[in-house]
Order: sequence, then C-alpha cells, then structure tokens
Amino acid sequence: MTGFVSFVSAGPGDPELLTLKAVARLSAADAVLFDDLAAGPILAHARAGADLVAVGKRAGRPSPKQDHVSRLLVDYARSGARVVRLKSGDAGIFGRLEEETLALSAAGIGYEIIPGVTSASAAAAAAGIPLTRRLTARRVQFITGADTSGGLPDDLNLAALADPQATTVVYMGKRTFAALAALLLAHGLPPETPVLLAESVSTPAQHLERFTLGTLAAHLAGAESHSPALILYGPLATGGW
Amino acid sequence: MTGFVSFVSAGPGDPELLTLKAVARLSAADAVLFDDLAAGPILAHARAGADLVAVGKRAGRPSPKQDHVSRLLVDYARSGARVVRLKSGDAGIFGRLEEETLALSAAGIGYEIIPGVTSASAAAAAAGIPLTRRLTARRVQFITGADTSGGLPDDLNLAALADPQATTVVYMGKRTFAALAALLLAHGLPPETPVLLAESVSTPAQHLERFTLGTLAAHLAGAESHSPALILYGPLATGGW
Repeated sequence: MTGFVSFVSAGPGDPELLTLKAVARLSAADAVLFDDLAAGPILAHARAGADLVAVGKRAGRPSPKQDHVSRLLVDYARSGARVVRLKSGDAGIFGRLEEETLALSAAGIGYEIIPGVTSASAAAAAAGIPLTRRLTARRVQFITGADTSGGLPDDLNLAALADPQATTVVYMGKRTFAALAALLLAHGLPPETPVLLAESVSTPAQHLERFTLGTLAAHLAGAESHSPALILYGPLATGGW
Repeated sequence: MTGFVSFVSAGPGDPELLTLKAVARLSAADAVLFDDLAAGPILAHARAGADLVAVGKRAGRPSPKQDHVSRLLVDYARSGARVVRLKSGDAGIFGRLEEETLALSAAGIGYEIIPGVTSASAAAAAAGIPLTRRLTARRVQFITGADTSGGLPDDLNLAALADPQATTVVYMGKRTFAALAALLLAHGLPPETPVLLAESVSTPAQHLERFTLGTLAAHLAGAESHSPALILYGPLATGGW
C-alpha cells in the first residue's frame, strides 16, 4: 500500500512547456507538492480533490525547511498516495532534487524523475538564439550565482567561466553578478562580451534585454527587482531577438 | 502570404516528453521537416495531409546537405505554409539551429523556437540522479565529442572539462571518448571518476551502464554500437539507478 513519488519538472513557467508525461502525472496524482514558481495554470492539470500543497521558496523570502518537504513526501507516500513533487524548470538542474530523493530511498519509497525544459533553453529560445554553435560556442555550462549563504560561491572555476568560446548561463545570479563580472574581467573575459538578461522567462512578465559584461553590473546596481532571472553570456548572447 | 517556421524541440525520444506546445505546433503544421531520431510516434501528432519530410542525419550515415535543409525551409515558408522543423532534444543544444535560422532571417521569413527537454536531462532522470548538487557539483556543462571532421575538437578547455566538481555530459561522444579520457586523466581527473553511459535514452532500447573514467574507454574499444549515446561523468554519475 506504499505510494510512489513522481518528481515532475514543471518547465520554465509557460504551462504549454509542460511535457505530456508531466500532465499525465499531475492528472493522476492524489497530492501535488509545488514551489511558488510552478503554481497557477500548471496546477489546473491536477484532478479535483487532489491535495495541493505549497512548499516552495523564492529567492529572498522565507520558506519551509527542506527537511519538512522531505518529511511531507514520505508521509504522503506512506499513506499510499500517488504523489507529484513539482519542481520548476528541469528537476535535475539546481532543483535540490537529491535532498528529497535520498530521503525517499532511506524510507524505502519508490520514485521516478520526469525531466523537463530547463529555463536556459527557454531563455535562449525566447531570444531566438541557440545555446551552442559549431566552432565558436561548443560548450554550454550552467551555474548558480549563489551558494547556501546567498553569496557568490568562493570556489568558482574561472578558467571554465571566463572562456570566451562557451555559453554560460547563470541561474539566480542577479544579486551576485557584479562580483562575478569583476572576477570574469580580471580573468581576461573581454568587457564587450555579449550578455542577455532574461527575466520571468516564458511568462507574461517576460523581459529580455541585451547588455555586455561591462554594462550589466552597473544596470543591476540601479535596479531593485525580485523577478526570477537568468543571465546568459558568451558569443551567442548577441544574436536574434 | 509568407509562411512561418516553428523550430520544435522533439525531446530525447520518448513521445511523452514532447511539450504541449510542440504537440500544438505539430498538429497545426502544413509541413514537418524531421530528423531520423525524432521520427515515429512523434510524427503521429501531425495532421493528416501534412507533408512529412525526412531531412535528418545520424552519426556515420550520409545525410542531406545542411544548405538543402535551409532551402527547403525557405521554399515551404514562401509557399505560405506553416512549417515545423523538428529537432531532437532541445533545438538550441547541439541542434545546428543557427545555420537554419540565419537562412530564414536572410530570406525575411519569421520563425520561433520551441524549447524542449535535452537528452542530458532525460539521461540523468532515467538514472535517478540530478545534474547538479550543492557544494559538490555546482556546475553542469555539455559538450560534443566530435567536431565537423568527426574527431575530438582540438581546442578543448581541459581546465573546465577535468573539473572534479562539475557534471559533464558529452553528446555524441562514444567514438572519441578514449581520446577525451586520456586528456582528462593527463589533466588530473582521477581514473575512478564515475561515468554513466546512457544509450538510446528514453526509448524502448534505453540502456544505462556505470563505468569509471578508467574503464569506459576499454569497454567502448570492444563494442561496435551505433546507438545514440550520452556519456555523463562527475561525482553524481555514481548514484541512483
């Protein structure tokens, strides 16, 4: 009678960027645990009568403790429920997935992971550009702009990040971008490197704006915005939209 | 009367990993240009009467010239058609997207890009592991194992690729992995670094197998398989399935 947990990737925000499998799991779920970012129309796929439980967090706001979420997952599954744990973007990319899968494994509860569209793919698509290009942008990499303390991680691989022949996407990087940009410039990445700031990607509030490595930090210093954002830099950030 | 081209990401292979938006564009298309990898059940979403045109390529097999594909897209769009250009995985990641979008822009034809699930996300999900982890795998990067000549690119950023604190996913990397592994080992990545070989991800032929950096090259030397594969290495490649 033990239940089962489906970690379902909700995609970047646009409910049309859910996969068919995500919709199927939502429709069949007895309980859906969701993050704020994934709320709204996406939850409309849940069946009437399903428990909808908000457990999410947004940068800079208080949120339930992670172990509370894991305990809820285990409790729901032990009650025999089909549980969906909705994660924004692709669950495997900066989704803190492992903290929850390890708790389920320790409790002997089965789970699956439904992959989804990560926000970097949606940001590039919205800008009309690819994330890779033969010869000049053969590598694409994703990092977060903040460690557990909210600051820039202190063990960044700058040889990787200051590579002019890669596309780099910084998730949750607005608050620390000035510090990151200073490191990148000091490591030799040219100040004219194109940068795309992509806010609220794939939602009605979507805003895309072009900068350079030299100009974005100053822009962010003057702006006080809490909208979720990606920062994409590299040779491809200049094209398209 | 000019048409419009939707670059639609088909996802890693499982037709259930199409997005709702991809299904909507397929259903409305007058013509669908597709790669071999994305064929079959995914095309069942196209309406009866739509032109279905195979233009794809697989590693090691002959395929239509790229400029032929671009010309077909332009010709279909000029005839007033709603065109879907189906690309496997996420169109923006190793999809050679720009060669086709530039041709459309030059011809004054509008286009959109529908992002999708990239194969790396599907491989990790199938293995029950995330692509990132706080503190120990903060960066994830994707590369291809082959340049335009089919060999390992000669300008690899080994400081980025031999980083033990990143997850690296090598697309189309089976044939050149022995050479890449030798470079990684020479650059200090330990031979016991976990590696996941993920073949035909998310299809009925899916095969996942664990190796280490030291053992996979020898395994591949003895195997003659043309199935599409991802090679994922880093601290997280050990967990899960």
